[in-house]
Amino acid sequence: MRKILIGVMGPGSAARPEEVAHAHELGRRIAEAGWVLLTGGRNVGVMEAANRGAHAAGGLTVGILPGTDDGSVSEAVDIAIFTDLGNARNNINVLSSDVVIACGFGFGTLSEIALALKGDRPVILLTNNGDFKDFLMKISNQNLHLCQTPEKAISLVRQILQAGQTFRNLSKEIGS
Amino acid sequence: MRKILIGVMGPGSAARPEEVAHAHELGRRIAEAGWVLLTGGRNVGVMEAANRGAHAAGGLTVGILPGTDDGSVSEAVDIAIFTDLGNARNNINVLSSDVVIACGFGFGTLSEIALALKGDRPVILLTNNGDFKDFLMKISNQNLHLCQTPEKAISLVRQILQAGQTFRNLSKEIGS
Amino acid sequence: MRKILIGVMGPGSAARPEEVAHAHELGRRIAEAGWVLLTGGRNVGVMEAANRGAHAAGGLTVGILPGTDDGSVSEAVDIAIFTDLGNARNNINVLSSDVVIACGFGFGTLSEIALALKGDRPVILLTNNGDFKDFLMKISNQNLHLCQTPEKAISLVRQILQAGQTFRNLSKEIGS
Amino acid sequence: MRKILIGVMGPGSAARPEEVAHAHELGRRIAEAGWVLLTGGRNVGVMEAANRGAHAAGGLTVGILPGTDDGSVSEAVDIAIFTDLGNARNNINVLSSDVVIACGFGFGTLSEIALALKGDRPVILLTNNGDFKDFLMKISNQNLHLCQTPEKAISLVRQILQAGQTFRNLSKEIGS
Repeated sequence: MRKILIGVMGPGSAARPEEVAHAHELGRRIAEAGWVLLTGGRNVGVMEAANRGAHAAGGLTVGILPGTDDGSVSEAVDIAIFTDLGNARNNINVLSSDVVIACGFGFGTLSEIALALKGDRPVILLTNNGDFKDFLMKISNQNLHLCQTPEKAISLVRQILQAGQTFRNLSKEIGS
Repeated sequence: MRKILIGVMGPGSAARPEEVAHAHELGRRIAEAGWVLLTGGRNVGVMEAANRGAHAAGGLTVGILPGTDDGSVSEAVDIAIFTDLGNARNNINVLSSDVVIACGFGFGTLSEIALALKGDRPVILLTNNGDFKDFLMKISNQNLHLCQTPEKAISLVRQILQAGQTFRNLSKEIGS
Repeated sequence: MRKILIGVMGPGSAARPEEVAHAHELGRRIAEAGWVLLTGGRNVGVMEAANRGAHAAGGLTVGILPGTDDGSVSEAVDIAIFTDLGNARNNINVLSSDVVIACGFGFGTLSEIALALKGDRPVILLTNNGDFKDFLMKISNQNLHLCQTPEKAISLVRQILQAGQTFRNLSKEIGS
Repeated sequence: MRKILIGVMGPGSAARPEEVAHAHELGRRIAEAGWVLLTGGRNVGVMEAANRGAHAAGGLTVGILPGTDDGSVSEAVDIAIFTDLGNARNNINVLSSDVVIACGFGFGTLSEIALALKGDRPVILLTNNGDFKDFLMKISNQNLHLCQTPEKAISLVRQILQAGQTFRNLSKEIGS
């Protein structure tokens, strides 16, 4: 049966210490909830930390890599998917996640937020960046959610899943 | 010899009248300058208007379509490239443009701005949206340029090309 | 720790009964060996049968879908990756498999065999089609292996893994 | 108005002298017919020769590159499209060609033939390789055409276009 995949997106080597700490906690809490963690799979920044957090709690992790098998995969990735698509793989990250959590910023993460909202996927923004929140809230829709702690992010994921507000559920309802 | 490609990105059917008018003028001015116009290729919104503007001035137009050949191509596209990649094709749009002009908003355009900045391509933002400008200027780098009229956008393109600040030139210099 | 992914590629709705039976047995044997099954993920033909076989033996299954979440995923897929890339996703299938097994024919499968050999991935051809074998053996290299039963295919996978002839191992050695 | 794009696919640095000579003649004849040449865009083998042939006859050329702008583009490419998709870009090559001509072999070209037939695009195989012809004719459909000279290949293109047997025309008829 299809497992629930929760995506955690965020900066690579440019990630700040707070973002890395948040990513580790997100990974741990995702694993504890019995969900699968999906990230961009590289061994740096938010990706690496989230995967390590999930592994520390015995979780299963999927990495969607931008390149081919070149040694940049996080050692805490169980299932490595090599796309060789560069940043075009960002669209796969969000289309494959039942819920996307953006943990920190950067152009790559911004593209993932935009692609997720374009693809009608729920996005949780874990940030204290006021400018960005203000901007996004103005252009966004009901798929965008804001919070300031990993604990609250996981609580939002749970609410979204329970309310059936994922693309998986909504597309089923439309189809039926 | 490789031609200069100028990308014009913007909303499809959700485009506002002002954005459509701007797109038409951009297309016309790009053609008059002897550059090739590159868009997402569909027969709606900013894409359609830019292609029509370029054709009105006798220009050459390239459309990078998200799907296959299904009747949604603008009739003012000369060279239709069918990617069947959905929104992942947005990355091709920006990687193939010497300069990217964002004409209006929407999640797709936002993803293109982010992917262009991620890929070190110069981006010109033609907008009066203050929130967005404030936000982007804070996270951005020297590749982001702002303006409020198509005429000024074209003048910025010319400056960028003359200064050799395109990826094409910069990657050559780094390589040499 | 990264799991071993074994790809099973083959026709969808055009699959012949023998190919479907082979795919089911391959899925079962892959699961029994403790490997992860990777397929194109749809609920037809070789994909569906291989996933059901793996599930019957308690295995873990990954599906790399050509579209978005539209109800065509096999119910026996645990991890669904939605690429929205159409047939371009075939390249991801083979780049992500430690060993690729081609079970039957069709243009899609043929493209996967070609892309796998292009990408230096080991390919096992489970077929009795003499013409195809003759042709491929002439153009191919040491990455192509032939056999006529699922049991023999799994035995070949084991040999390839033990000899370290996967891209994962070979790229590590080259890197070191 | 949309131009007619004729794709010429074939090996890169591994191309044989005969294949290179054929590619040059194909490019020249495509340009003389007033069609646009589409290739994989790199500065080697069949791609380079076809583009040079088209330029010698004053034609327009489009290159669909596998990478980003890194100096490997043929100087005879007018419109360079950078996909950064690796071999996944092969699917774009064939989906964007009204007719695909395979000039020589190799795994990449084989994947393009397979993807073209999968996508219902007419393919002309310019080859003397008997094994391959025998194999392909057995699995193929009415979209596959064989010939032994560039002159004959161009004559086949003309027939296909006049009979309206391109995807562009057939999809229009189905739609109407």
